[in-house]
Order: sequence, then structure tokens, then C-alpha cells
Amino acid sequence: MSETATQYLCERLSGKEADMIRAAVVGAAGYAGIELVRTLLNHPAVELVQATSDADAGRLLCDVYPALTGATELTFTPHDIASIVQTCDVAFLAVPHTAALKSAPELLASGVSVFDLSADYRLKDPLVYESWYAVPHTSPALLADAVYGQPELNHVALEALAVRKAAGESVLVGCAGCYPTATILATMPAFLAGMVSGDTIIVNALSGISGAGKGLRSSTHFCMADESVGAYSAASHRHTPEIEQALSQVAGHAVQAVFTPHLVPMKRGLLSTVTLPLMPDVTLDSVIEAYTQAYAHSPFVNVLGQTMPQTAQVIGTNNAQIGLACDSRTHTLIVSCAIDNLDKGAATQAVQCANIVWGLDESAGLAAVGPIV
Amino acid sequence: MSETATQYLCERLSGKEADMIRAAVVGAAGYAGIELVRTLLNHPAVELVQATSDADAGRLLCDVYPALTGATELTFTPHDIASIVQTCDVAFLAVPHTAALKSAPELLASGVSVFDLSADYRLKDPLVYESWYAVPHTSPALLADAVYGQPELNHVALEALAVRKAAGESVLVGCAGCYPTATILATMPAFLAGMVSGDTIIVNALSGISGAGKGLRSSTHFCMADESVGAYSAASHRHTPEIEQALSQVAGHAVQAVFTPHLVPMKRGLLSTVTLPLMPDVTLDSVIEAYTQAYAHSPFVNVLGQTMPQTAQVIGTNNAQIGLACDSRTHTLIVSCAIDNLDKGAATQAVQCANIVWGLDESAGLAAVGPIV
Amino acid sequence: MSETATQYLCERLSGKEADMIRAAVVGAAGYAGIELVRTLLNHPAVELVQATSDADAGRLLCDVYPALTGATELTFTPHDIASIVQTCDVAFLAVPHTAALKSAPELLASGVSVFDLSADYRLKDPLVYESWYAVPHTSPALLADAVYGQPELNHVALEALAVRKAAGESVLVGCAGCYPTATILATMPAFLAGMVSGDTIIVNALSGISGAGKGLRSSTHFCMADESVGAYSAASHRHTPEIEQALSQVAGHAVQAVFTPHLVPMKRGLLSTVTLPLMPDVTLDSVIEAYTQAYAHSPFVNVLGQTMPQTAQVIGTNNAQIGLACDSRTHTLIVSCAIDNLDKGAATQAVQCANIVWGLDESAGLAAVGPIV
Amino acid sequence: MSETATQYLCERLSGKEADMIRAAVVGAAGYAGIELVRTLLNHPAVELVQATSDADAGRLLCDVYPALTGATELTFTPHDIASIVQTCDVAFLAVPHTAALKSAPELLASGVSVFDLSADYRLKDPLVYESWYAVPHTSPALLADAVYGQPELNHVALEALAVRKAAGESVLVGCAGCYPTATILATMPAFLAGMVSGDTIIVNALSGISGAGKGLRSSTHFCMADESVGAYSAASHRHTPEIEQALSQVAGHAVQAVFTPHLVPMKRGLLSTVTLPLMPDVTLDSVIEAYTQAYAHSPFVNVLGQTMPQTAQVIGTNNAQIGLACDSRTHTLIVSCAIDNLDKGAATQAVQCANIVWGLDESAGLAAVGPIV
Repeated sequence: MSETATQYLCERLSGKEADMIRAAVVGAAGYAGIELVRTLLNHPAVELVQATSDADAGRLLCDVYPALTGATELTFTPHDIASIVQTCDVAFLAVPHTAALKSAPELLASGVSVFDLSADYRLKDPLVYESWYAVPHTSPALLADAVYGQPELNHVALEALAVRKAAGESVLVGCAGCYPTATILATMPAFLAGMVSGDTIIVNALSGISGAGKGLRSSTHFCMADESVGAYSAASHRHTPEIEQALSQVAGHAVQAVFTPHLVPMKRGLLSTVTLPLMPDVTLDSVIEAYTQAYAHSPFVNVLGQTMPQTAQVIGTNNAQIGLACDSRTHTLIVSCAIDNLDKGAATQAVQCANIVWGLDESAGLAAVGPIV
Repeated sequence: MSETATQYLCERLSGKEADMIRAAVVGAAGYAGIELVRTLLNHPAVELVQATSDADAGRLLCDVYPALTGATELTFTPHDIASIVQTCDVAFLAVPHTAALKSAPELLASGVSVFDLSADYRLKDPLVYESWYAVPHTSPALLADAVYGQPELNHVALEALAVRKAAGESVLVGCAGCYPTATILATMPAFLAGMVSGDTIIVNALSGISGAGKGLRSSTHFCMADESVGAYSAASHRHTPEIEQALSQVAGHAVQAVFTPHLVPMKRGLLSTVTLPLMPDVTLDSVIEAYTQAYAHSPFVNVLGQTMPQTAQVIGTNNAQIGLACDSRTHTLIVSCAIDNLDKGAATQAVQCANIVWGLDESAGLAAVGPIV
Repeated sequence: MSETATQYLCERLSGKEADMIRAAVVGAAGYAGIELVRTLLNHPAVELVQATSDADAGRLLCDVYPALTGATELTFTPHDIASIVQTCDVAFLAVPHTAALKSAPELLASGVSVFDLSADYRLKDPLVYESWYAVPHTSPALLADAVYGQPELNHVALEALAVRKAAGESVLVGCAGCYPTATILATMPAFLAGMVSGDTIIVNALSGISGAGKGLRSSTHFCMADESVGAYSAASHRHTPEIEQALSQVAGHAVQAVFTPHLVPMKRGLLSTVTLPLMPDVTLDSVIEAYTQAYAHSPFVNVLGQTMPQTAQVIGTNNAQIGLACDSRTHTLIVSCAIDNLDKGAATQAVQCANIVWGLDESAGLAAVGPIV
Repeated sequence: MSETATQYLCERLSGKEADMIRAAVVGAAGYAGIELVRTLLNHPAVELVQATSDADAGRLLCDVYPALTGATELTFTPHDIASIVQTCDVAFLAVPHTAALKSAPELLASGVSVFDLSADYRLKDPLVYESWYAVPHTSPALLADAVYGQPELNHVALEALAVRKAAGESVLVGCAGCYPTATILATMPAFLAGMVSGDTIIVNALSGISGAGKGLRSSTHFCMADESVGAYSAASHRHTPEIEQALSQVAGHAVQAVFTPHLVPMKRGLLSTVTLPLMPDVTLDSVIEAYTQAYAHSPFVNVLGQTMPQTAQVIGTNNAQIGLACDSRTHTLIVSCAIDNLDKGAATQAVQCANIVWGLDESAGLAAVGPIV
């Protein structure tokens, strides 16, 4: 652990909490939001000051989520930017797209840094945003400034924000989506190493039902979702341009993804299995070596070699696990990356970004292991 | 229902059962085997005479599977070919590969027709068999004679067997595997219509845990399998050559499949999602039209158009449901086909084959609808 | 199978369907309703003429429930009594309580027999109904006439209805609830045999989530229901008086039930575990003997002796399985009864009642075995 | 957090780890064992020195449980008492019964304190042990000395051990079983307050499949356990005398439990629902008040009043949640207590006991909240 982080911890434990980072979670009653709440409650350097939910305003968090009984006495507050500005240094936005467009500019202007978990500040080109989300982007100027919050891809840019933050600026991070996170981690080293032939990859991904959100729909009723799998939004899922933007940046040329997500009957967990045509002469051994090197300094990414990961192995953590295989007949690479969609795919990855921006140890407040069984 | 089938039914219901087909299920205590038992017990033209299991010989079926209490008083018998020959017209082999190599020749020579659910008589080229299964094929002469038991692909060949069967011959059907069945159904019309560009397809498939069989392994312990997904046997699964053989036959040229199966936490159900590059000018509408036409006379295959199927919708039946999408940017077809791995992927498809060979209605004894909720 | 049933079947198979029983399912889009649809579609003596759903009127059944694709071309109709009277001989009401109060009188007056799956015609005493359901009973006169539809308990009364039905009367059956069915089956033989000491029994029951119905609620969202169990409506569940009415009738004196239902993470299945203080000198052997005798002629009830039943063993069927144990230290009997809440607890039990009333074989159209794995 | 714990933490974070408690987990590859490993790895005052498993000796923990990848580089060691004595201050025994009988005496004699999670040191009367476990108790002298490790029941006795421990003695704690923990918590306040009439309680409990252990059995195969519930060991489960011993101690007279456990399809979680006849004039309000008072100082027990707990709300934590209802007609109390069987029912409760014995804050190293969704 870094010296700064240790100091924070010891000061906090000793009751000298003057310098705690004061945080708000906006949209705290959703699944990503409440996982942010849980994560921040455990964070040694953060004081969770506000958890907002218009629908649940006035109710105790532990009344809505009884798992929190005894852990916090916070009450959901209505979504009120003025109040956040007054009481917080940072806001995590766990809101639907377009909602962040409305809040982020004012928060930033008032000196509150923003970690946006929605899609509003991920895509650099406002036209791409508008074509996939069917709404105009109302703060394109901020896009140029926002950093895409996928730390293994964008560590340097996040560190640069840390400098600006330290200098007193408010900063904006557009945190990566769940499918893009797993898919970027699954493919980035191959693109970086120039091992991929052509510009099209096939992405098949599986997500637990929490990825569909907390809203009540027939498709997420237990009796419809249990004991069943199916694809959805094939070739039309909004995470597609986000995957393509990141991989194009890495590859140095336009990359296209044929993306088919599926829902599978489990609460949490996400697996992205990607097939990539390999350049001639690239061997599986050299691929595994490239992946191992690429993530040698990433505390959260484990390359398992030829062992394929199970999502249960990363649940409740910020970890990603990657397995690799090669179809030698077609000279095609198959990569599978497992994450927890609510953690590495949402809440804990946002906190990882924040840790970097705050100059803390990247792992501060993040569990190394989740439930094993 | 055909007149013959009606006659069978009425005779059976009236107690005139003289002409019932006497069947054995070999390997009846496994998951596919016991599903065959269940199916044959419900079949109006079949009398289930023997259910063999060396491990459970002497035990009542309903003691091993209490769901059968009250439904049958059969006892598992040891696997004894002489006894089958003496009492049965037909044997369904639900055994591991190589076991059928040992039984089928003798059964056939003794006049007992064989529907083999193992891999032993699926691959036409014994060298391909040997390279994927790492054992020599000991009855290659029978391979030429065996018909690959995927009825939507091979209806005519199965009907030809019916003629031979009616003439008193014993016949051999090498029933299709679960992943190949779903993948063939997902792609056959596109290949038939010449809509596929190139010769490589990407197959990602999801299977319920029963696909891993009844054997006790750490990976199928509830606490390891539940709430988790993962790929396995990527680029090395033994169903690969079976998929390729069938699609090459349809396409008229060699087709290769990059195949990645996954296990998902449900008991039954299998989904194969395939991506195929489309020929120029092929539209999604024309693809849907081709699929609808191709299966117009298949009572068990439903083309849902652009709606993606859920596996729960076909559980407990011989049905397959297919959904289609097109990634217009890359001009790639995405097809998803849902089946019940133990039924259309094993037991009921074998009975469908048998119905055709027996000259019965293809649907005889097969439920039209399974549990809806 | 009875001669009548055989004749029905043969006529149906031969296309002579003139004498089919024409049925409506009212409230067909709910979970019990759609299971009735599935059951009646498979019934050899029934033509399903109408499936009503105000919410889904005008939609194909197979659009709402794609599992029905290829199995029926019926369209949901609005709930219109006049139309049912015109086209049907019988109506199955799978509606919320009070809705049957509105429909049943008119249907009966118009000559349509009614099998009501709601609670409206189960409780003989309208005051008991009113105290538990908090609404007045608007057709108390019909209550005296209605027969409680739990066939193992009330076979004779249902047979008496068959006589009246044959004489041209319309008849009313108030089909038993799911928890009462399992609890009555679990305890009736002990009460019949005078083996129970005292008048209070403790009932703990577990139901799959389909028991909570199709409505969208937070508690049935997959992410809330999965991997969790909890009690609900302890000491206040509306099935309590129904259990007590039936067992008091059997015991010949007032019986009280302390009833605690729980929801468990599975789609279907219901287990009722009951503890009853035994009279002195009653042995477990004599209890097992009494149960075995009591159900000797019930095709759907299996007494497993000291083996405790698993709900999976009865799913998709009208079967009940019962296991027994004795705590010799406290001389207490523990009985566990497993049923499928949507079948023996709702749809197929209603059809079993109807079969008796129609003079058919009790088992007509009911599967002997469901999915085994 | 206590001052001592804070000091430990700060020293640890600063690298001054000289005073860490050195711990071994014996039987670390089982489900309770590996949860102990996870818990101790997160404990600020503990250094996990050994994790033993004869079957997995020599393998990295993270090879057997890939969820531990990156979290520990420990290797399973064989079960060798001499080695533990040499390197550890304390041993947690997560072994089958009789195994602790063999290890504990030698460990204690060598100065190593023992927290035994098996049944070997829970029952005070060796004859009771022998009658339920069918083996002789080989170290009855230690029984008198052992403290029953259910901290809410036995806090004072555990604190007394702390004094002995501080004086240099090795101490022995026989940690409570999973069903007894939930059942004691559910009923202790009622007995303490003299609210229970009579001496017999009815206990129905539901456990997730991990309660059946890691061993491979047909009953824990995913395809057998999923989508099914059933009772087992009715009236004969070995946790019965443990429940009775604890409640008899609390009540001041012999209490008997009619105990029926059930397995339910979830990985973790345990619910004990108990019915107790109430003394006249006891109201539900007074019961809730008594429970609230009884647990006012227990950081891990939450009384939810009339809200019934869901097991998902306590998973991954040492928490217990309790809900209460009264059947006023029979004047019977219904209490439901939810815990995580592997945590409060095993691993974290053992650590809670150890924290008390070590003079640390009771909560040291224990998560306040687990995954919420």
C-alpha cells in the first residue's frame, strides 16, 4: 500500500478524519449505485455523505436494502445538485444515460469532480453518441476533457487527472461499461502487440441478470429468467461503439465488433468470449506471454493461461480473469474474460479510477477476494 | 397424425398391443438414457422392454429416479446383448463413445436396429474419428451404411432407411450430438441458399449442466456450477468435426467452425449462437424468408424472425427455435438456435429418427409443449 | 384407461371430434391459467375453445408464451361471459379471488360448469371467507352446493357431481389451493386413523416463486429472489382456514394450523412439512401402513415410507410424494409432502376433478412423469 | 474499533507486523476451511501461516480455488501437528467430527489454542456425544474446559477465556454448528424472558447446498440439487442435541427440539424457523421488545421486528437477522433467523470467538456488509 494510503488509514482509524474525501452517490438505489454505496462505506479514505434516489428519498438505505442494516444510518436524499455541491468533493453518477448530461456540467463548474457510470461521457465523438443513443449530446465540450475510465487501458490519462485534481481542478471520468470492460481486457494486449489480423472481431458475452437493472420487467421476473438463456440486442447493443472506440485507439486503426450479448440465470458476473483472427506465425505461447506482460503491473487482472475463467471466481471483487485458446486450424485466438458486472464492470472500477485520480493506492478500499463458494 | 400412427394408438388403447415395437435403452441410467426411458414410456407404439445399466442393475428404475414412481415397474438390467437380441426389435444406445463400437455390430447382425446416441457412428471418415477421439474406429464398414441422425438435415436418408427397415433389414442411425444439432439448425438454410461468404463460421454455444453428464465431478457440484459461467474445450471440443461434416455436406465445400462451448447454471437447455459473414446483397429479410421456407415442413423447428429464442421455451420438447439478426455494418448474420440438450439434442431427436424409420408420424409420442413457466 | 376415455381418444384420433368437451380457461395468461391451457391442449377429450385475458386480449397465446409456438393458434379473448356461454360446456377460472364471485353465478345459471381455482368457493362458511379475505361473499347460496376440489379428500363428492352432471346440471367445484393440497395429503391419513393427539399442527411449507404469481414485484425480480429464502405471511396466510376446514372435516373436530409459508429460489414445486403429536402407542410403522392404505387407490399419491421426497420428482405432473419420520423422543410425526404448485396445486388437479365429474378416467390427459433431470 | 485493534492495524499497515497472531487453518480445502482462509487473509491482526489439506497438499491454494488468484501465494500443507505447533499460535480446525478429537489435545498441550469447528467439543456430556455420533469421546476431560463458541450465548465465558489466554494458557473453543447458531439466536431471548410455555419447540430449517460439504455426491450434483427442495435427517440430525443443550442451559430446564432440516437450491444461507408456544399474556410487542433488548449490544444480530428476514441479506457476513410473528389464535410465536451457514454458521463466527479471546474488537476483520444484489 502506498504511504499516502497508509497515512489515510491510520488517521482514519485514529479518529483524525478531517481529510476524508466526501462523496455522493447519485442514483444510489439502483444496482450499481448500491454497490457503490457498499464499496464506499468500506473505503478507508472516503466518507459517504449522500446517497440520492428520487424514488426512495426519505427512506433509510437499510429499509430499502436490509443487507445494510447495522452498517449505515444514511437516508436516501432527493437528487439535488446544490446540496451535493455544498457537502461533497466528488460525485459518482449511477444514473441512466442523459441524466448525467444534465448533472455533470453543473457539478464540475462548482468544483465537484464527477465519476460518471452512465454512457454520457464515454464516446469521444458526439455524433456516434447521438446515433446510438438517439439523443443529442448537450455538453460536447466536456467530452474532450473527460477521461475514459477503464484503468488498465487509460492509466496514464487517469494519472494525469490526478495532477490536475491535486492542483485544485474538478475532473470528469466517463467510466467504462460492463461489456466494454471485459472485452477491452480480453483483447487489448493482442491489439497492442499487433497480433490481430484484420479489423473485425466477434464478441459473444454473457451477463448475469443484474446487468438488466432493477426495473421490473417480465424478462427479469424469476420465473422467466431462471433456467433459461437467450441472446438480446444482437448487433444493436449500445456498448458496441464503446468497444470499437477503445480497441481502435489501441490498434491504431478502425476496429469493428460483431457483438452479441446474452442473459444467463445468475445474479452477477459477466463473461466476454472474443474470437480474433491471428497474424501469421503468432503462437499461443507468444500470445500468453504478451498478455502476461501487458498485465504484469495490473493488480486486478489475472492471466490464467490456457485455463478458462469462471465468473464465480471474481464475484464481489474488482478482479478480471482471462483465459486463452487457439484454434490452430483456422489460426484464430479465443479469449475469455470474466468480471463482476456490478464491480469491475461498474462500481469498484469507478472507485479504482477515483483512487488513481486521488493519488491513493489503486486498491484502496477494494476487496482482494470475494466469497469463494 | 398419420393413419398408421392412429391405428397403433387405437390398438394400444384397446389393449391389442401385439404389434408394439419392443425397445431397449442401453445406458439407461445416464441423463440421456433416462430421458429416453421417459419418452418411450409415453410412446404409443413402443413397449419399453429393457433399460440397462451395469452400475444400477437389479435396482428398480424408480428407486434410482423417484420421479418414475408409479410410472414403471421396470428394473435396470445389466448390459447383455444376447438378452436384448432375444427380446427387442430396436436398441437405443445412450453410452459413452467406444461402447457403441462394441455393441452395435452384434446387435445389427442379430437383426436389432440401432439408434446410437454416442459419437461412434456420426463421422463418416474413420480417420477424423480417430484424430478427435484418439481411438481407432473398429467397424468402419458400418460407417458407410449408418445414417447421420439429424432429421431436418437428413430426412430423405432416414426415409430411405424406412424402406429398408420395412423390408426386414436392421438399420443403424448415428444420432446427432447436442451442439451439432443446434448449430446445424442455426446455419443450414443459410448455406443451402448460398448466402454465406467464405468457409469459416464462429460458433459460441451455451449448455445447461446436464450436458456434462451424471458423473460426479467438482465442476458439476452445485456450489461450483451455480451462479457461474465459463467456457471450456475452446477450439478442441469433439463436436467440432461433426458440425463441420454436416455443414460441408450442405455447403458443397469444406466449412470450418471455430467452436467455443460454455456451461451455464441451468439443468437443461442449449443455445448455439453463430456468426456467419453474408454474401453481398443478401438482406436480413431474404435470410428470414429462406429460413422460414427451409423449415416450413419441419414440425419441430420454429423460425421466430428477429426475435431471439430463450431456451426455457423449448425445454421438455423436441422443438428448436431460431432467431436472426444482421450486423449491417459488417454484413454479418447472427443466428441463435435454442433446443433442449437432452431432448432435441439427444433423446427425443433419436425417437424422431426412429419414428421416421418406423414409418410413423414424425411426432408420435413427442410432446408438443413442455412446462411453460 | 377406462373404456369411455379410450373411445374418446380413438374418435379424436380418427377425426370424429363431435363430442369433445368444449372448455374455456378464464385468466389464461397467469401462471396457473397457462398451465391449464397446456394441460387441456394435451387432453384427449377436451377442445380448448377460449383462453381469456383482458390484458392480452387479441394477442396470440404463442406471442405471449413462445413455448406455445406451433402448439396452438389460439388468440387471447377478452373475459366475456356471454361468449363463453355460447361456445363452451365448462369454464376453468384461474382468476384472483372475488373475480370468480362475479363470473361463476352467471356461468352456472347458463349451464356452464365451473372449476374455480380461486379461493371464492372453497370455504364453506361465508363469515370465515369474509374474515380472511376482507370482502363480503356475494353468492353464499352457491357455497353449499360447491364441492371442494381436492380429489383424494373428496372423491365421493366429486363422483356425486358426475351423476348430476350426467343428468344435465351445471356444477361448481371450488378447487383446492396449493398449500392446502400438499398439507391435506400430508396429514389426512393420520387424522383419519385417529393417530393425531390434540388439535394443533405445525405446518412449514416451501413454495417455488411461481406461487407468487406473474405480477411484477421487487420480491420476484430474479436478483432479489435468487439465492435467498425467507418466510412470509407467517400466521396470516389465507390458506390457513382452508387447511383447517379440510382437516377438521377429516378429524371430526376442530383442527388448528400454525402455518408458515416460505419462498424458495426455484420456479415450481411446493413442499409442506408438518409436525403432528402422535397418540400414545402409535408407531411409525403403523403410520406408514395407514398412509399406504389410504392412498392405495390414488393413482397420483406415492407414499415413499421413510424416504423424504424432493419436489423435483413431481414437477410437471399431478403427482404427490410423501415421506414420514417419527421423533421418538417427543413422539411426534414429521410428514413431508411434495407437489408441483402449478399442477397438483392448481392446473392438473382441476383437470383431475373435471375428469371425475366428466366420468372419464381420473388420469385422462395427465402426464405420468415429468422431466426427470 | 477498540484501541488495541487500531494499533494492530496501523502497525500492520506500517509494516511493523511483529505481533501478528500466527494462525493455521486445518482442513482448509473444505468449504468452511476456505472461508476461514478468506476471512483470516482479511484480518488485520492475523497472519495466516498454514492452510492444511492432506488431499491437496503441495498445491497452491489459488490453483484449487482460483478466486484466490493474486490474493495469496500459500500452498496447502499436509496435516502435520508438529509443524503447526512450531509455527502457529492458534489453529482453526475445519475438520469432520472425530478428527478434532485426534488433534486438539496435542495442540493444546503444546500451547496452541484451538477453535474447533467440528462437533467434537460442543456437547458437554460425552454420553450424548457418543449416542448421536456413534463413536466414543476420547478426551472427555477437555470437554469440561472447552467453551461452546456461540458468542451471543456465551460472551462471558469467552471473555473469561481471554483472561486465561492473556495469562499464557492455550484455550479450547468448540464452535457452534450452523443450525444451532440460527436456532439459538432465534429462541434465546424468549427462553431468557420466560416467555415460552412447555419444553418442546418445533424447528424447521433451510440450508444452502454448501451445508452438505464439498464431497461429491449424487444429491449435490447440480442437476439433482437445482430447482428442488426436500427434508433430510428429520428427527435424526446431529445438531439436535446441540440445540437442546444450549436452550436447556438458557431455559433452566430441559428443552426438546423436533428438528427438520431441508436443503434448498442456493449456495449459501440458512434460515431457521421456530414455533414456540407462548406463556399466557405474552404479547408480540413484548416479545419484540425482549429480543431487541437481548441483542442491543450484539453488533451482529439485527431484530427486524415483524419483518421476516431473507437469507440473501446476510450472505458473506457474520450477521444474523431475526423476524417475529404471533399466531394469536393458538398463542404461538413464530421466529425466523437468517444467517450465512459458512460465516455466522462457521468461519466468521469462529473468528468472532477468536477476536473475543484475543481481546480484540469483536468485529475485527469481519465485513459489515456483503454483496447486496
